[in-house]
Amino acid sequence: MIYLDNSATTHPRPEVLESYKKVADLYYANPSSVHRLGSEVERLLQQSRSQAAEWFGVQSKDVIFTSGGTEGNNMAIKGIALMHQSRGKHMITSQVEHPSVIEAYRAMESLGFDVTYLPVDSSGRVNPDDVAQAMREDTILVSVMSVNNELGTIQPIQEIGQVVEQYPKAFFHVDHVQGLGKINLSIRDCHIDMCTVSGHKIHGLKGTGALIIQNHVSLFPLLHGGSQEQETRAGTENLPGNVAFVKALRFLMQDNDAKRNHLEEMRQYLWERMEDIEQVVINSPKEGAPHILNVSIPGYKPEVVIHALGQEDIFISTKSACSSKQPDVSSVLSACNLDRDRTTSALRISLSYQNTKEELAVFVKTLRKTIEQLHATMGR
Amino acid sequence: MIYLDNSATTHPRPEVLESYKKVADLYYANPSSVHRLGSEVERLLQQSRSQAAEWFGVQSKDVIFTSGGTEGNNMAIKGIALMHQSRGKHMITSQVEHPSVIEAYRAMESLGFDVTYLPVDSSGRVNPDDVAQAMREDTILVSVMSVNNELGTIQPIQEIGQVVEQYPKAFFHVDHVQGLGKINLSIRDCHIDMCTVSGHKIHGLKGTGALIIQNHVSLFPLLHGGSQEQETRAGTENLPGNVAFVKALRFLMQDNDAKRNHLEEMRQYLWERMEDIEQVVINSPKEGAPHILNVSIPGYKPEVVIHALGQEDIFISTKSACSSKQPDVSSVLSACNLDRDRTTSALRISLSYQNTKEELAVFVKTLRKTIEQLHATMGR
Ligand SMILES: Cc1ncc(COP(=O)(O)O)c(C=O)c1O
Ligand SMILES: Cc1ncc(COP(=O)(O)O)c(C=O)c1O
Repeated sequence: MIYLDNSATTHPRPEVLESYKKVADLYYANPSSVHRLGSEVERLLQQSRSQAAEWFGVQSKDVIFTSGGTEGNNMAIKGIALMHQSRGKHMITSQVEHPSVIEAYRAMESLGFDVTYLPVDSSGRVNPDDVAQAMREDTILVSVMSVNNELGTIQPIQEIGQVVEQYPKAFFHVDHVQGLGKINLSIRDCHIDMCTVSGHKIHGLKGTGALIIQNHVSLFPLLHGGSQEQETRAGTENLPGNVAFVKALRFLMQDNDAKRNHLEEMRQYLWERMEDIEQVVINSPKEGAPHILNVSIPGYKPEVVIHALGQEDIFISTKSACSSKQPDVSSVLSACNLDRDRTTSALRISLSYQNTKEELAVFVKTLRKTIEQLHATMGR
Repeated sequence: MIYLDNSATTHPRPEVLESYKKVADLYYANPSSVHRLGSEVERLLQQSRSQAAEWFGVQSKDVIFTSGGTEGNNMAIKGIALMHQSRGKHMITSQVEHPSVIEAYRAMESLGFDVTYLPVDSSGRVNPDDVAQAMREDTILVSVMSVNNELGTIQPIQEIGQVVEQYPKAFFHVDHVQGLGKINLSIRDCHIDMCTVSGHKIHGLKGTGALIIQNHVSLFPLLHGGSQEQETRAGTENLPGNVAFVKALRFLMQDNDAKRNHLEEMRQYLWERMEDIEQVVINSPKEGAPHILNVSIPGYKPEVVIHALGQEDIFISTKSACSSKQPDVSSVLSACNLDRDRTTSALRISLSYQNTKEELAVFVKTLRKTIEQLHATMGR
C-alpha cells in the first residue's frame, strides 16, 4: 500500500498507541478527584502540558488540550467573538481557510458579526497589505492559516502578525494544523495569540490536539462546566489522548530537519515527474510546504483517477478530506482564480516523512498508466 | 486497591482498549476521503452509529458522537439557545445539575437568555409541578438530569417529559451521564429530545460519548466546519473512540439486569452498614440509583477521611470530581437545604458492577477504623 493522503490523516505511530493504551489502563482516575490516584493523574497531565508548552515555546498554562483542529479553530473564533464583542464586531479571515474556520466565521455572521474574507493571489497567498487595508477600529480577530491544506501554500504569518500587532484590540489566530512540523513558526515572534494544532495529522491520534493561547487572551469557552484546562475547556480531561498527542509531537520534532529535508526532496522529485506528464498542471506554488503537491488533470474526473489508483493500492485525495463530499469545485482553487477545468480536476498528493522515493516512483508510473488507460477508454 | 469512585470515572475494559487500538492502527484513513480506505472507515463509522442507535432505541442519524458528557450538554443547551432564540429566550433547569449544565446555562444568561433554576426537595428531587409552573410561552428548553452525580437521586424524567411535551416550542434535554446502564430510561417514552451520555463513566474511554438527538431537532453547532455527524458536529471523526464507546455500551448492556441487581445489593449492604456507624448520616435517598451512596460525617473534613482511606488503598470522593476543587460546600447538598455540617462533610461512594461485597466489607471496616483514629487525634 502506498498512502499519499497524509494531509487528510496519518497512521498513528505504534509508540503513540502504546502510550495511549498504557495511560488509559494505568492512570484512569479523574484528575479532579482529591485522592492519591487523582493526584497522580493530575501530575501526569501537568507533565504533558509542560512538555507540549516546551515544544511550542510557551508557558504550561498556554496549552489548552482539545479534541482536534476543528475544536481549536471554533474555540478561538467563537471564543473571541462572544467574549470581546463589546470591543467591536468585525473580524477578518481569508477565502482559502479550512471549513472549520470559514464555517465558524459564517456562523458568527449569522449572530450579527461582520466578517471580511480576504482574497488570495493565484498561488493562494494572502497579501499582508490586504490585511492592513481591511483592519478597522472595531476589528477584534484575524485568522489566517500557516499552510493551506489543499495547495500547501505558506502564508506570510510573520508579516500579518506585524500588521495585527499594531491594533491592540485585535487578536491574531493561526490555524497551524497543516504547518506543524512542516514549516518553522514561532508563536512568539509572529505575535500569534492563538494557534491551532491537531494530533492525527502528525501520526498521533484522532480526537486529540491543542489550542495554544498566548498573552493572557480570554475566551468565551465552547465547553462550560468544571474548571479544567485553565477554565477555558471544561470536561474530564482525556489524559491518554493528551499524553499521546505529546508523544506524537516528540516524534515529529525528533530530527525534524532531516524529516523536512526528506519531504522537500520527495516533493522536488514529484514536482519534476509531474512536469513531465503532458496532461498534468501543477497548482501548488513552487515554494510551498514540503508535504503537499496539488495538481490538476483537466478533463479527468478526480474520483475516477483516485479510484483507478486505489485499484493499485495507491491512495491520494481530491481537495481536502473535510470538504470532499461537497460538490465538485474546489473553493480554494476557485479563490485562486483558476479555470473551472482545473478547479474541478484537482488531486492532492500529501506526504509523510515515512514515505519513500521508491513509493513515489511507483505512484508516478501508475499515474501515467492510469491517464493512458483513461484516455483510451474515454476515446479522447 | 479498592476503587469506589466510579461516578468520577471508571477503569476502561481491556476489550474496549483492544478495540480502540486495533481500529486506530488498521482503520486510520479519513472517512471523508473518497478512496477505498476512506470508504471502509466510513462503513465502520456507520456501523458503530447504527449499533449505538439500536441500544438507545433511536435511528442512526440521531446519534451524534461527541468528546464526552460536557460537550454533549453544552451542545444541547447552547445549540438550542442559539438556534431557536427567535422562538423565545427562556430556559429551565434545576439547581442540582452537573456544572457542565449549570455553567452552560449561566453562560447563556450572560448572552441575554433568561434561565429558571428549579429548586429541589431534601432528597434532591425536582417536582414536575414546579416544571409545569415555570413553563412559559417563550420557554425553549428544559434540562433535567436522570441521575444526580452526587446523591444518586433519580429524577421524575417521564413526568417532566409529559409537562414539556405540552409546549411544542420547548425542547427537553436529559443529562443521562450517571444514569446510563443504572436506571431504565426510554428516550422515546419520556419525550426526550436530546440525551447526553459519556464513555468514561461506563468502563469506556475518556474523550468519547454521544448526544442522542430525536425528533429532527436542529442545533446551532458548537463545532462548525465539515459536514460530519449529520452537520451537527464538525471535525475528523474519532472512529477508534466511537467504536470503543459502542463496545463499552455493549458490555454495559450485556446482562444489564444482573449488573444492576448486583449494584442494588451492594448499595443495600453499604446502606445498612452506614446506618450502623454512629457518626455517619446518609444523604442519598433510599430509592436512589444503585451505584451512588452519599454520606456525611459531620465535623470531619472529607479530604482528611479520603486521605486516610487512600493510605489503605481505598478510593472514594468528596462531592463530584468536577466541582471538587471548588470551595468546601456542596452546592447540590445546599440545594437540598441540608445543614452546613452536612454540606461540608459529604463523601460519595460510587460503585461499579466490577466491585464486590468483600471490597465493601473492607471499606466499611477501614472507614470505622479511620473515624476512630481521627476521633482520637482530634481529641473529641
Ligand atoms: C488546515 C486545517 N485546519 C483544520 C483542520 C481540522 O482538524 P481536525 O480534523 O483535527 O478537526 C484540518 C484537517 O482536516 C486542516 O487541514
Ligand atoms: C451528571 C454528569 N453530567 C455530565 C458529566 C460530564 O461528563 P464528561 O466528564 O464526560 O465531560 C458528568 C461527569 O463528570 C456527570 O456526572
